[in-house]
Amino acid sequence: MKLETLEPPVYERLARQVEDSIAQGSFLAGDRLPSVRQICSRERVSPGTVLQAFGLLESKGLVEARPRSGYFVSAATPAAAPLPENPVVEATPTEVGVSDAVARVFKDASRQDVVPFGAALPAEALFPTEQLSRCVAAAARNDPGMLGRYGIGAGDAHLRHQISKRFADVGCRVAEAEVLITIGAMEAINLAVRAVARPGDIVAVESPTFFGHLEILESLGIRALPVGSSCEHGLDLEALGQALEDYPVKAVLQVPSFANPNGSCMSPQRRAKLVSLLDDYGVPLIEDDVYGDLPFGSQRPKPVLAWDKGGQVISCGSFSKSLGPGFRVGWIVPGRYSERVRRLKYVNTVATPHVLQAGLADFLERGYYERHLRRVRQAFQTQMSRMAEGIRAAFPEGTAVNQPAGAFFLWVQLPDGVEAFDLGHRALEAGISICPGPVFCPQGRFRNYIRINCGMPWSPAVERALTILGHLAKELSRQPRTGKGKGGSRAVG
Amino acid sequence: MKLETLEPPVYERLARQVEDSIAQGSFLAGDRLPSVRQICSRERVSPGTVLQAFGLLESKGLVEARPRSGYFVSAATPAAAPLPENPVVEATPTEVGVSDAVARVFKDASRQDVVPFGAALPAEALFPTEQLSRCVAAAARNDPGMLGRYGIGAGDAHLRHQISKRFADVGCRVAEAEVLITIGAMEAINLAVRAVARPGDIVAVESPTFFGHLEILESLGIRALPVGSSCEHGLDLEALGQALEDYPVKAVLQVPSFANPNGSCMSPQRRAKLVSLLDDYGVPLIEDDVYGDLPFGSQRPKPVLAWDKGGQVISCGSFSKSLGPGFRVGWIVPGRYSERVRRLKYVNTVATPHVLQAGLADFLERGYYERHLRRVRQAFQTQMSRMAEGIRAAFPEGTAVNQPAGAFFLWVQLPDGVEAFDLGHRALEAGISICPGPVFCPQGRFRNYIRINCGMPWSPAVERALTILGHLAKELSRQPRTGKGKGGSRAVG
Repeated sequence: MKLETLEPPVYERLARQVEDSIAQGSFLAGDRLPSVRQICSRERVSPGTVLQAFGLLESKGLVEARPRSGYFVSAATPAAAPLPENPVVEATPTEVGVSDAVARVFKDASRQDVVPFGAALPAEALFPTEQLSRCVAAAARNDPGMLGRYGIGAGDAHLRHQISKRFADVGCRVAEAEVLITIGAMEAINLAVRAVARPGDIVAVESPTFFGHLEILESLGIRALPVGSSCEHGLDLEALGQALEDYPVKAVLQVPSFANPNGSCMSPQRRAKLVSLLDDYGVPLIEDDVYGDLPFGSQRPKPVLAWDKGGQVISCGSFSKSLGPGFRVGWIVPGRYSERVRRLKYVNTVATPHVLQAGLADFLERGYYERHLRRVRQAFQTQMSRMAEGIRAAFPEGTAVNQPAGAFFLWVQLPDGVEAFDLGHRALEAGISICPGPVFCPQGRFRNYIRINCGMPWSPAVERALTILGHLAKELSRQPRTGKGKGGSRAVG
Repeated sequence: MKLETLEPPVYERLARQVEDSIAQGSFLAGDRLPSVRQICSRERVSPGTVLQAFGLLESKGLVEARPRSGYFVSAATPAAAPLPENPVVEATPTEVGVSDAVARVFKDASRQDVVPFGAALPAEALFPTEQLSRCVAAAARNDPGMLGRYGIGAGDAHLRHQISKRFADVGCRVAEAEVLITIGAMEAINLAVRAVARPGDIVAVESPTFFGHLEILESLGIRALPVGSSCEHGLDLEALGQALEDYPVKAVLQVPSFANPNGSCMSPQRRAKLVSLLDDYGVPLIEDDVYGDLPFGSQRPKPVLAWDKGGQVISCGSFSKSLGPGFRVGWIVPGRYSERVRRLKYVNTVATPHVLQAGLADFLERGYYERHLRRVRQAFQTQMSRMAEGIRAAFPEGTAVNQPAGAFFLWVQLPDGVEAFDLGHRALEAGISICPGPVFCPQGRFRNYIRINCGMPWSPAVERALTILGHLAKELSRQPRTGKGKGGSRAVG
C-alpha cells in the first residue's frame, strides 16, 4: 500500500511532543513545563510557534497558563484509560492448531490495496534501505569469494562482534563466540525449541502470545501451556510457578520486551525473578528479543539473558523488526545448548548468506544502526500515539487500548460480544486488514481482541481506515448478543 | 587451502583430452582418432605439438600409430577396472545416529591447512564469484526496498521463472507458480521430509546415501530404511519394491543424478520404473537434484519429476554445488504437498533473502550460468579423471574406484580390512581430510570405503596428498587383520 504522508505544521509537531511526554509520564499533573524560551532555543523555532503549540494544548485541556509562571500540566488531565484485560487462561497443555486460522487471516491481508493494520510490520519507507543496500553492494564487491564458500559455522565474525558489543552496551556480557547467526529470529527460535523439546513435550508460552511461536510448536508437534500475561507486567510469574509445579515443562518461550501482541515489558525485578524461578526447576527460557531495540525511552531493556548464570537462557533476536526484514539475519545465544543448536543450524539451512552478514556488520560498525534507531523509535512513538488516539475516538464505548513503551503495534480489547474474526472479515471487505485476537492463543481466547499495526506513518488514508474500522466495530457491538462472553474458549475458527 | 596450480604444457593438455575421450567411451578400442591435421586446425597448435601428444599416449599404451592411416585407440586398452561393490544392506528401519561421527570427521577437516578431500565442495576459484557479486551488488542498488520487505511467499518471480525455464529446457514442465525458493537444498529437503513424515515414521534412503540426509532424519526422529544402490545403476528398484511391501514407508529420499557418494546416475528407464513403483504404493519421492546440472556429457539428466503425473515427486535443488554455496538459494517443487510446504517454509525461516534471489535471477537471465556450467563441467571432468588415475597409481592393490559421469567426487573401495576411520585419522595427521564410508549409512557399513573430493584443480600439492594417502592405505592394508570384514555392521564410530 502507498500511503500519502501528511507533514504536520511545526507547531502541531511541537504540541504532539509535549503531549507524548505527558502521556509517557515525563510530566505529571501540576508539573511546570519547559519555558517558551527554552523550547525556542532547543527546537530552533520562533516564540510565536511555541505559543501556538501551547495554545493548541490549552484548547485540548492538557496544559494551563499561569500568569508570570509559564505553562503547567493541567490538574484535570483525562483519567488514565483502562487497559485491555487479561482473561484467565486454562493452564492446560494444549495441542496447537492455529495455523489454518493464521493462513486464512493473512491470505488476503497481503494484498497491495489493503491498509495493513494486520501484520506487525513497519512501512518500508521507515527502513534505511538505500544506505543498507550500499553496504550490501560494497560487501559483495569487496569479497566476491563469500559467494563461493558455504560459511559453515557460527557466522561472520565481524557481525558477531558487533552483536556482542550491542549486548555489552546494555550491560550483558556475551562473547562473540557465544553468538550464532541465523535466518532471522524465526530460525533461531526453531533451533532453540528443537534443542530443548521433542514432539509431544510441553512448552509454556505467554497468553496472549505471538502466533508465529504457536505455529512453530504446532509444526513440531509440541504442546503449548498458556500462562497469563498482562499489559502492565507481562508474564504472570505466580501462574508460571504453578505451571512448572504441575507439568513437566521443557521450556518457557516468551517476548520479555514489548511482547507481541500485548506490548508488555517486564521490569528488571520480574526478569530476575523469572530467571531464579526457572533455575529452581531447571527449565530453560527461550527469550525472543526482536523488539528490544525499539523502546520509546532512551534505555533499551536489558535482555533476560543478563540475569542468567547457568546458560539456561537461550536469547534470540533479529534485525527484521528494527532495520529491515528482507535481510533475514538474526542470532541466537544458545548458552549450554550450543553444540546441539550448532548442529541443528547445519542440518536446517547449513549457513546464513555471508554477504548479507558482512553488509550488516559494516552498517553497524559505521554507527548507522544507532542513528537509524533514534529516528525510527521517534517515528513509531508518534505513530502509535496517534493511532491510539484515533482508536479511542472512533471505536465503540467499552474499547480498551494498551499503552506500550516500545515497538509499533497496539492491543485492543473490544466490547464484549464483538467477534474479532467477524470484524476482520468486514474490515477486509472495506480494504483494511487487522489481526484477530484468537490467533494469539492455543485455546482460541481473546475473541473480542485485535492487534493493530502502527508501523506506517500517520496519513489521511490511515485516519480514514481507523474511522471505518471503528464504525464496523460499533455496528457489531450493537448487534444482539449470541451469548458468547469475552475471552470465550471456542476453538480458533 | 591454497593450492599451487600446475599449468601443464600444451601437448600434455592435448594428450589428456584424447585420454579423457577414450575413458568416457567416445572412442572405443580400434577406433580411428582425429588426424593430426584436424587437431592442428581445431586446437590451433603446431603439428609438432600434436605428434608430441600422440607420442605420450603411445608411451602409455593407449594409442597406436598405423603407417599411412593415422592413430588408433589401442586394442589393448587397460581392462575396465572393477567398480566399488555394493554390499548387501539389511532392509530394516534404523534409528539414525550418524551426526556425532560426521561432526568428528569435519571438526578438523575444515582447517585452512588441510588438503580438502573430505567435503564435497569445489574450489572457490572455480565459481564465477566476481560476476556473481556484480549481479548481487546491482540487485541491491536497483531495488533497495527489497531489504525492507519480508518477501513472504514463494520467492522472487524472476528467479522462479528462470528455474521453470531450466526445467523446460530438459523437457520437464514446471510452472513458475509450482516453484518455491528455499535456503539451499538443505532447507528444501527438510521441508519435504517434514511435509510427508512425522517422528517415528520410516523414510527409505539409498545405501550409501548423503550423510546430510541422514542427519535431517536423525534431527527429526525419523527412521531410515536403507535400500541398496550400485555405482552402475543407482537405487536397487527390486529391493525398494520389497521394502515398500514390508514396511509403511512414508517417502523415498534419494539423489537420482550423480548420487553422493557413489556417483550413480539412474537411466531414464529406471526413473520411469521408480515413479510407477512409487505410484503403486502411493509413496512420495523426495528427489535431491543438486548435482543434475553437472554432467560430463552435454545432456543434463532429466529430473525424475519429469515422469511424475500425480504430484507425488517433490523435487529439490540448489545452486550451491554448481554456482556457489554462499548464496544459500535453492528450490523445491512440492507437487501435491504445496500448501503444507509453504506453511513450513514460513514457520522455518519466513522467507529467503530477496536481494540474493534477484541477483541470481539476473545472472541466469544473462546466460552466464550456462556459460559457467560448460567451463566448470569440463574442469570437474579433467580433475576427476586425474584424481582417479592418481588413486589407481598410489593406492594398494584391491582398491576400486567408481567412474561417475558427472559431479566432482569419487567413491573408493579399499581392500578388505582397511578401516576408513583409521585412514581418516592418519590422513588428518598428515594434513589431508577424507570422508569415511560409514557416515553414508545408518547401519555404519562401508567401513573400507572413502569419498574423495575432486573439486579442486589438479596441482603438485594434490598429487602429493594422493601419494601420501595411498601410502597410508597401503600401510593399513598390510596390518594384521582383526577379523572385521568389508561392509561390516559395527555401529558408526
